[in-house]
Amino acid sequence: MDNELKRSNRRQRINIERDKLKIEVVDMRDLKISIIGAGSAIFSLRLVGDLCRTKDLSNSLVSLMDIDSERLDAVYALATRYARLLGSGLRFEKTADLRKSIEGADFVINTALVGGHAEQAKMRAIGEKHGYYRGIDAQEFNMVSDYFTLTNTGQFNYFLKIAHTIEELVPNAYFLLASNPVFEGTNLISRASGVKVVGFCHGHEGVKDIFKVLDMNEKDVDWQVAGFNHNIWLTRFRYRGADGYKFLDSWIERESENWKPEDPFDVQLSPGVIDMYRFYGKIPIGDAARNGSWKYNYNDEVKKKWYGEPWGGADSSEGWAWYQKRLARSTAKTEEMARDENYDLLKEFPPEKMSGEQHIPFIDAIVNNNGVRLVLNIRNSGPEGDLIIPSFPKEVIIEVPVWVDSSGIKPEKIDPAIPKRIVNMYLTPRWMRMEWAIEAYLSRDISILKEFLYRDPRTKSEEQVEGVIRDIALSNPAFKEHYSL
Amino acid sequence: MDNELKRSNRRQRINIERDKLKIEVVDMRDLKISIIGAGSAIFSLRLVGDLCRTKDLSNSLVSLMDIDSERLDAVYALATRYARLLGSGLRFEKTADLRKSIEGADFVINTALVGGHAEQAKMRAIGEKHGYYRGIDAQEFNMVSDYFTLTNTGQFNYFLKIAHTIEELVPNAYFLLASNPVFEGTNLISRASGVKVVGFCHGHEGVKDIFKVLDMNEKDVDWQVAGFNHNIWLTRFRYRGADGYKFLDSWIERESENWKPEDPFDVQLSPGVIDMYRFYGKIPIGDAARNGSWKYNYNDEVKKKWYGEPWGGADSSEGWAWYQKRLARSTAKTEEMARDENYDLLKEFPPEKMSGEQHIPFIDAIVNNNGVRLVLNIRNSGPEGDLIIPSFPKEVIIEVPVWVDSSGIKPEKIDPAIPKRIVNMYLTPRWMRMEWAIEAYLSRDISILKEFLYRDPRTKSEEQVEGVIRDIALSNPAFKEHYSL
Repeated sequence: MDNELKRSNRRQRINIERDKLKIEVVDMRDLKISIIGAGSAIFSLRLVGDLCRTKDLSNSLVSLMDIDSERLDAVYALATRYARLLGSGLRFEKTADLRKSIEGADFVINTALVGGHAEQAKMRAIGEKHGYYRGIDAQEFNMVSDYFTLTNTGQFNYFLKIAHTIEELVPNAYFLLASNPVFEGTNLISRASGVKVVGFCHGHEGVKDIFKVLDMNEKDVDWQVAGFNHNIWLTRFRYRGADGYKFLDSWIERESENWKPEDPFDVQLSPGVIDMYRFYGKIPIGDAARNGSWKYNYNDEVKKKWYGEPWGGADSSEGWAWYQKRLARSTAKTEEMARDENYDLLKEFPPEKMSGEQHIPFIDAIVNNNGVRLVLNIRNSGPEGDLIIPSFPKEVIIEVPVWVDSSGIKPEKIDPAIPKRIVNMYLTPRWMRMEWAIEAYLSRDISILKEFLYRDPRTKSEEQVEGVIRDIALSNPAFKEHYSL
Repeated sequence: MDNELKRSNRRQRINIERDKLKIEVVDMRDLKISIIGAGSAIFSLRLVGDLCRTKDLSNSLVSLMDIDSERLDAVYALATRYARLLGSGLRFEKTADLRKSIEGADFVINTALVGGHAEQAKMRAIGEKHGYYRGIDAQEFNMVSDYFTLTNTGQFNYFLKIAHTIEELVPNAYFLLASNPVFEGTNLISRASGVKVVGFCHGHEGVKDIFKVLDMNEKDVDWQVAGFNHNIWLTRFRYRGADGYKFLDSWIERESENWKPEDPFDVQLSPGVIDMYRFYGKIPIGDAARNGSWKYNYNDEVKKKWYGEPWGGADSSEGWAWYQKRLARSTAKTEEMARDENYDLLKEFPPEKMSGEQHIPFIDAIVNNNGVRLVLNIRNSGPEGDLIIPSFPKEVIIEVPVWVDSSGIKPEKIDPAIPKRIVNMYLTPRWMRMEWAIEAYLSRDISILKEFLYRDPRTKSEEQVEGVIRDIALSNPAFKEHYSL
């Protein structure tokens, strides 16, 4: 009994600093998880559900933070009701105050999108007015329509605000970055602050689409993905000891031409991705499947050819409109669920299985030593300071499979290595674009963003570059102020 | 007397293999220098003049090799006459046979341009027909109009033919690559063969334009350039202990707007180069001054704005036409000089001073230990196997100042380092384009060249890429055969 009590009420607090590991045993009731941007109901409830289902974390305090008080109230009501339904001991607080939410937190999860999709739509429209189809943030190898890296000054500001608040109040807390752009964001935070930042994305789940289509049981597959966030490749693919790509090849031969997408996001086995596979020798996974070069993305018609009718993938005009409608429906539903005390939450969020998000398993592994394999965004630095991906410097954040437990994050050895063609023709150009975006932001030098646009195939003249930057500054105060325009 | 005889008739033959140094003393009369593509009269006579002026090399045998027998005969006649006029003991042979010229050579200098400018003009015209202004070989950071890296299959074939012939017949000979593209060429040769290849270019002489304009005596300047061939930057610039860039800044303030080019090649201090200096913080030197991004190169009008009226630099339609006319005049003059036994060669090629080309001083340093500072293209590997430019792998060929003597080529420590912005926004993208071009050639995979074009701002569609590749294959047999089109 006494032992049982100990197990449930005490936990280890792990403090990993640059080169040392400290383990303290503290009361489990102390565990505080802060969710920034918690007004995103679906995401928050997935995390809350996972927490309820994770026995060793079920007494934690969850701090829901959002500046939209209506949405925050709705999520708070839903979360408490859902936890009660599941018989969980989770406790909640809600706040619009970032500092208050971070105060005392062990883990800070950021899912906020500053300005929301509406702001991004505005930036996109200005870009299109100046001849930049899908906006200036849509870039080669970064076509995902809410992965903004150039006009998203407010988002970068907020990333650093959270990081600096963590540094000040809870320097040993983990910063779990779940909001985009995860690649630019984790690199920015890691260079501009000393916090322990880890990037989260579920994009690697795209491997399951492949296993399903090939009728493979995941437990029979030995797989690795490697690259950058939204730019990962299936570098290892063994099925029951055989080369998994042979099965993919024969599927392509038999079935590829009959392929049809079920929704705009169903592009993992689209003709564009098969074309990339043929060229690069490996298949891009998850969001990487959406991130080809302009060849697949010149316009909506070209997108339809490569990502399937009728949408042309999620990042065409029609595909993105489809997604925005779905988001609006989901927001309306959240409001309805929050209003209606008798709404069947258990039907909406089935209690049995984990959501598939990695955040709570990560926390459980760190806190309770429940070891787990995840795919995370971490510095390119192996256990002995060696490079995990040899082609990039150690400070660059890469996305790779890792083993997490209370001793920390242990990256797997990437074997086989990422093919040279992927390194030279895909990852290095993408890495450079990250460097340019971060350097522009950190130096506040607008000439870097202009030079970025001079390298953009949609740019035809100096006037076009000056014009689009001027109009963006006019309707984006954070951008205007940051670059002193 | 005996000693004097020894000194003039004997020399050391230096054989540097990967990790060992062998020195044999051999008869100086054995020294053989092969000039491939010797039909280029001006270049050949500059080398011959330098040899005549270099006492310790004046008994060498010069093998003039060219497949154009008329031009070869003319150069042979001129060279022997010129050497006689200078009272030199140089001996000459002429041949159209590559093997014969390389047989027994200690130094092989390649200056041949396979197909000549006419072939390049044909490729350029096909590109322009398909919407590629200045042809598909004109690329960001590589706008020099005879620096072909994509359609120049014949040139690459010839580079490797020479390299493999050297490997077979005279494996210890130095291969001095003087013909373009030196960056792609030296990297290709160094990866596909075991010969000792060194790249030569006089582009760094652009520093002298700057010293002249700033009224600086070169001996008072402490300078370094670093980068890749045609992509070098003035990374160190100290004048009498002060920061040389301060003088440049005040020249720009006072004089920049009155600047006018004297000819299309006079672009070292053009507005485009000053703009690059403002952005990158250092000034690009020599041919690098011609190699900006598309911002400076969209079309002839844009080029005029940045490189000056009336030509818009050497790489506009008008500037290049000017250069072709000059080349034609020079060819006509060579023929005239060769025909007319009484032509005053000494007036045309004044005997007093060295040509400024680096080849003969290099040979003299290696053979006779007459140490000299040069700017050469060598592997990025320092004396202790350390990286000379830390941002690039050791196998990449870089252009840096070196000290050469009979113990070999000793690169200077690059200090200060190349600024990060130049590495990330200029050199790394240029490096990648070299890798893509070489990988396309070595793998014979046309899809790499197509992907290259998909990343080209002038490409608007898949059809355009397919069309230009098809038409190039139709009129370029070496290209067609190499890529099995």
